[in-house]
Amino acid sequence: MNLGSMIQTMAGDGRVAARLMAKAATEAKNRALRATAALLRQRRDDICAENEKDLVAAEKAGLTGAKLDRLRITDRVLEEMAAGLEEVAQLPDPVGAVTRMWTRPNGLQVGRMRIPLGVICIIYESRPNVTVDAAGLCLKAGNAVILRGGSEAIHSNGVLTRILQDAFQKGGLPDKAVQLVGSTDRRAVTELLRQEELIDLVIPRGGESLIRFVVEHAKMPVLKHYKGVCHIFVDEDADLDMAETVCMNAKVQRPGVCNAMETLLVHEKVAKAFLPRVARALEAAKVELRGCPHTLAILPHIKAAAPDDWGMEFLDLILAVRVVPDMATAVQHIETYGSQHTEAIITSDYRRAHQFLQLVDSSVVLVNASTRFNDGYQLGLGAEIGISTSKLHAFGPMGVEELTTTKFVVYGNGQIRP
Amino acid sequence: MNLGSMIQTMAGDGRVAARLMAKAATEAKNRALRATAALLRQRRDDICAENEKDLVAAEKAGLTGAKLDRLRITDRVLEEMAAGLEEVAQLPDPVGAVTRMWTRPNGLQVGRMRIPLGVICIIYESRPNVTVDAAGLCLKAGNAVILRGGSEAIHSNGVLTRILQDAFQKGGLPDKAVQLVGSTDRRAVTELLRQEELIDLVIPRGGESLIRFVVEHAKMPVLKHYKGVCHIFVDEDADLDMAETVCMNAKVQRPGVCNAMETLLVHEKVAKAFLPRVARALEAAKVELRGCPHTLAILPHIKAAAPDDWGMEFLDLILAVRVVPDMATAVQHIETYGSQHTEAIITSDYRRAHQFLQLVDSSVVLVNASTRFNDGYQLGLGAEIGISTSKLHAFGPMGVEELTTTKFVVYGNGQIRP
Repeated sequence: MNLGSMIQTMAGDGRVAARLMAKAATEAKNRALRATAALLRQRRDDICAENEKDLVAAEKAGLTGAKLDRLRITDRVLEEMAAGLEEVAQLPDPVGAVTRMWTRPNGLQVGRMRIPLGVICIIYESRPNVTVDAAGLCLKAGNAVILRGGSEAIHSNGVLTRILQDAFQKGGLPDKAVQLVGSTDRRAVTELLRQEELIDLVIPRGGESLIRFVVEHAKMPVLKHYKGVCHIFVDEDADLDMAETVCMNAKVQRPGVCNAMETLLVHEKVAKAFLPRVARALEAAKVELRGCPHTLAILPHIKAAAPDDWGMEFLDLILAVRVVPDMATAVQHIETYGSQHTEAIITSDYRRAHQFLQLVDSSVVLVNASTRFNDGYQLGLGAEIGISTSKLHAFGPMGVEELTTTKFVVYGNGQIRP
Repeated sequence: MNLGSMIQTMAGDGRVAARLMAKAATEAKNRALRATAALLRQRRDDICAENEKDLVAAEKAGLTGAKLDRLRITDRVLEEMAAGLEEVAQLPDPVGAVTRMWTRPNGLQVGRMRIPLGVICIIYESRPNVTVDAAGLCLKAGNAVILRGGSEAIHSNGVLTRILQDAFQKGGLPDKAVQLVGSTDRRAVTELLRQEELIDLVIPRGGESLIRFVVEHAKMPVLKHYKGVCHIFVDEDADLDMAETVCMNAKVQRPGVCNAMETLLVHEKVAKAFLPRVARALEAAKVELRGCPHTLAILPHIKAAAPDDWGMEFLDLILAVRVVPDMATAVQHIETYGSQHTEAIITSDYRRAHQFLQLVDSSVVLVNASTRFNDGYQLGLGAEIGISTSKLHAFGPMGVEELTTTKFVVYGNGQIRP
């Protein structure tokens, strides 16, 4: 069978499985998720042996350091996958809920019922835990998933997928609810992205070039974010102790992730009081500062920011710093250079807090809290499959509910349209 | 300026206007909508003169009949446009509403605030009233719109857009909130569909080939439906009087639209009682029936259905009829041939009514009511910009609220992530 028809068969099987999953009882889905967790722990040696094959091949191919580490399924990673599934099993099942209901003048009762999206395709890079984490969330929401992981993780993803399939089949659910694209040929991705009639949604997870490739070729909807260029604006009425604590957390706690702060905007009225102290703390944590001319006047020892530094996703211990004359300029800066991901204001002023929340057009806008809270678990969605910076369907972190949609259900007693 | 940079400038202007529209007060938006309605009535002669230019050109190009009629702005069409805007002005403004709010264990208060989508591009065929109807809804929801109408209506769309712009500018809102692509070059559409960074959503309205073209080329999300192949299943426990009334309405009241019935499925237990009477009524209304073998055994005078007739969107006085042994077969038929648009069951059985609503994967599923109710106004959304049969973002009729999204707003008092 050629690649094209193989992918089409897979998508068709996914469609059939999705119909069965849509009807599956909550308890059946939860049992299968828990059974997967148990199997992951039971088959530890099997998983490690398959993972070892990937690690050996990756080392031969010259992978080292962090890249190799991301591929490794340690006991801790395995336990996190298992525990994650058990948590997903405990989340409320969104499917079937009628979210609103109203009556029309002609007596028709109209409601919106939550239903699964259908077939979700996830295209991701090397971390094999995505196989289990992402699949678990999609399945909980009653969808079928087609996984296309990185070629470096092909053996690891294979064994993890088989475990999911075994657990689902034993629980009376369709094993085709989870499928892994076995081919490492990149054309397999292009073929997947053509299946507009059979795949309802594609979620790319990985670097910007992977995401651009998916957006370029996908005929179906794509949920994605390219990057997180997050800003904190320290207002003239900020509590400077709080501002320092929050900025340190947003920049230093985990600098390599999308919700870390990349640019600090400081109101000129507090710049002289705030910049030296926050610079001291940041520099003690090995953060390199790059400042605007006004910042340099206060912190003459730091590097000047290049034009490219505004709007740069450093994903590293580097921070761009700008002094602004007012909140309007801060908001303008965010509009120009931001990525609509996460922005925060630190202020004690009620009116500006309120305005900032209204004016800033980002998926998560915070007052007096760290940008690191843009995360499905942290915001109370239970878990997340990713963060969307496209506005359609879901803007911000996506949990189980964002993997569903609603249909209209209408109860009549013979109504016709006049 | 070449076409590419002209379109990019337009999209950039749209983005700036969208930011201002997002902040616009409800009353300012409503005033501008009402002012547009008043101007439409005042400038009737101007509008008719421009429309006449399109009509003359269209006749020269050989357009006749219904196609020419769709282009004509009669006094009635003009009044409907004006009245439509006044109705939209009266709808509640979805923007700014915080739909839900919850508190996390660390004290963070998290809410979801409704915000406009941003810049919406509408690509449509000849009817010039779409210019006003679609723009009105998008603007009410705080968006900016870029319109690309059919080349046959270029003068009509031009004058209607200028009226919208005048009314918005006089009301202190950005005139660039409504822009019309003046070029009739098809490459203008391709250029628009590339502006992923500046246009948030594209809504194509027209025939299947237009929609396929947009889906093929768009890099941003698309809300669309290709076709409506709507089914009614007359169950064994149906009230046959009601079944006949509803079927007549669904097929005959307006056969050329997407929510008209195209296939009738009848339970075999009532086929002998129901088919002759419904056939009589339908044939009296000039409907051509095309039946499955079982139907032909009861109605020997009708035409046999060809395999292509199942799943065909006739948009005409033609109806495919199939007798099925049970509801499961009816649901299976809908899964195979339907377009996930609108399906109805006629039954007195509580359990089957309930099951049908659960099992059928269409944007609107009805019990004992006509498929013709799949319409934003009829279902109580106030108005509609179209019907989506893609599941992402909006599934079914889309009203003002579906032209918005939500962002997360977070109220903290210094929280950081541990």
